[in-house]
Amino acid sequence: MMRALVIHNGIRLDKNYPVPTPLPGEALIRVLQAGVCNTDLELVRGYMNFSGVPGHEFVGVVEQAAGRKELIGRRVAGEINAACGVCETCRANRPTHCPHRTTLGIDRRDGTFADYVLLPFANLHPLPDSISNDQAVFVEPLAAACEILEQVKILPTDRVAVIGDGKLGLLCAQVVASTACHLIAMGRHAEKLQILQRRGISTTTDPTTIEAKSLDIVVEATGTPSGFEAARQLVRPRGTIVLKSTYEGAALPVSLTMIVVDEITLIGSRCGPFEPAIQLLANKQIDVESLIQARFSLNDGVAAFERAAQKGTLKVIVTMIN
Amino acid sequence: MMRALVIHNGIRLDKNYPVPTPLPGEALIRVLQAGVCNTDLELVRGYMNFSGVPGHEFVGVVEQAAGRKELIGRRVAGEINAACGVCETCRANRPTHCPHRTTLGIDRRDGTFADYVLLPFANLHPLPDSISNDQAVFVEPLAAACEILEQVKILPTDRVAVIGDGKLGLLCAQVVASTACHLIAMGRHAEKLQILQRRGISTTTDPTTIEAKSLDIVVEATGTPSGFEAARQLVRPRGTIVLKSTYEGAALPVSLTMIVVDEITLIGSRCGPFEPAIQLLANKQIDVESLIQARFSLNDGVAAFERAAQKGTLKVIVTMIN
Repeated sequence: MMRALVIHNGIRLDKNYPVPTPLPGEALIRVLQAGVCNTDLELVRGYMNFSGVPGHEFVGVVEQAAGRKELIGRRVAGEINAACGVCETCRANRPTHCPHRTTLGIDRRDGTFADYVLLPFANLHPLPDSISNDQAVFVEPLAAACEILEQVKILPTDRVAVIGDGKLGLLCAQVVASTACHLIAMGRHAEKLQILQRRGISTTTDPTTIEAKSLDIVVEATGTPSGFEAARQLVRPRGTIVLKSTYEGAALPVSLTMIVVDEITLIGSRCGPFEPAIQLLANKQIDVESLIQARFSLNDGVAAFERAAQKGTLKVIVTMIN
Repeated sequence: MMRALVIHNGIRLDKNYPVPTPLPGEALIRVLQAGVCNTDLELVRGYMNFSGVPGHEFVGVVEQAAGRKELIGRRVAGEINAACGVCETCRANRPTHCPHRTTLGIDRRDGTFADYVLLPFANLHPLPDSISNDQAVFVEPLAAACEILEQVKILPTDRVAVIGDGKLGLLCAQVVASTACHLIAMGRHAEKLQILQRRGISTTTDPTTIEAKSLDIVVEATGTPSGFEAARQLVRPRGTIVLKSTYEGAALPVSLTMIVVDEITLIGSRCGPFEPAIQLLANKQIDVESLIQARFSLNDGVAAFERAAQKGTLKVIVTMIN
């Protein structure tokens, strides 16, 4: 038996949840720490009709890995999509879009707010010692931010904005800054934007100071209608809007005619590559520690979720070590 | 004085409209033929609050071209956006998006349903004799279809659909077919799709026969909510939807979350390059003659607009020669 936070009509701590048994090709991982993501909060509110253990941002140590004993004892981060590996989408090298995939702590696969978790060997990324446990919890969301660079070629001459100073926006801004483009980060909270200013990134709380239709690329990381509207007003003709957040509710009214007339490119962006994220952290190019605002023991996991749900909270860490 | 169709609270023929006087850098062109576009019909209904002479698909002969006498007597097609040439957008080689542009027969510039029209020298494309006057009227809309190839790399292995069997859809399908990809053209009218079948293009009137999320690229050329919905359902994760038509009304409800989760790329596509369009016509690679359904003298121009507005009508040609 182990401890686990369980979502089932709300969220509660279960101290007698069964330790999972690995299938062939899966590792059993002892979780050290996990981060609370906005998606976790949405799952509690009913998103995906999820029931089970949430959590998908984590660092852990491999305890069992049948046939892959070199993994045992390694400290790892883990990709969240468990793909089938044999369908057309997987064979086309798009495993994160496998229609048969399960998703760690989100879709038919128990997640990381527990003492133990399972993941396929293929999902595991051993971590160098230079990355702390605190940093390691950010590998997954930082990989999602790195997806931007997989999808859009950002030139040093490009004028780019990242809209949103939440957790994802702060990571996206730092990733985009690594390209040496002309970047401005936009948000509503001066104290959060200071995290970026300390990294030499220009910021503003007033989007009206930026000329309309003047930016080559806009990354929308708020997931709000007003964030999308700001992106639309700032991007130049033939420019690109990267949508980094999901949006609450079914649909947003979008002027497709404006997209046609201005020949805008709109790119949806979700999970990303782990290796560059690990490299950026190992190189100390991204400040993630400043995003940590609270720590809770797994025993106080429900309180951790309550803290994370408070407006304006950045990252809340749940630790399994005590 | 000359003849001109004039939009001003409806449309009427004016037989005493002044012949325009070229500004420096502009040519005076005697119009031979012009095609009626859906945009023209929308202008009559109030789109762009346009008042003046509509018309932007044409073939004509240059009569005056001060300082560019080699143009005089040449038969030409013409690009419709008259750019300023000096602003940041023009200098970035995006003249079709110049914020100071006027647009032929659409925005603050009289168009081609008249005996004479003006255009800057830079907009003119002399036509080879192998292109007939009928074909030449299609250079502008065919260039818009060619814009797809400027924006999206289509591989021979790609599965592509063009949705819509209107004028633009039939041109887009033929342009996309030139890439030798796996193309299916979708529409509601078997008799229109036959134009494509005769060119060896696969067609269907039933989109449900195509597997959901199975296509790499979908070109949406209907400008209708149902066309966009079909595109969304057919495109695969990480696939591309090209929006080729403007949409009536202010905005459409769009699930941006679906675009994020499936990492779809949405590309707005408008005016395109004339040279490849002229080349495709000269090479007889595109059947445009089959799209012509009626001809009217400019004297009967109002009747030409009425005919073009009848549901299901393909191209209506207005001739100035008689």
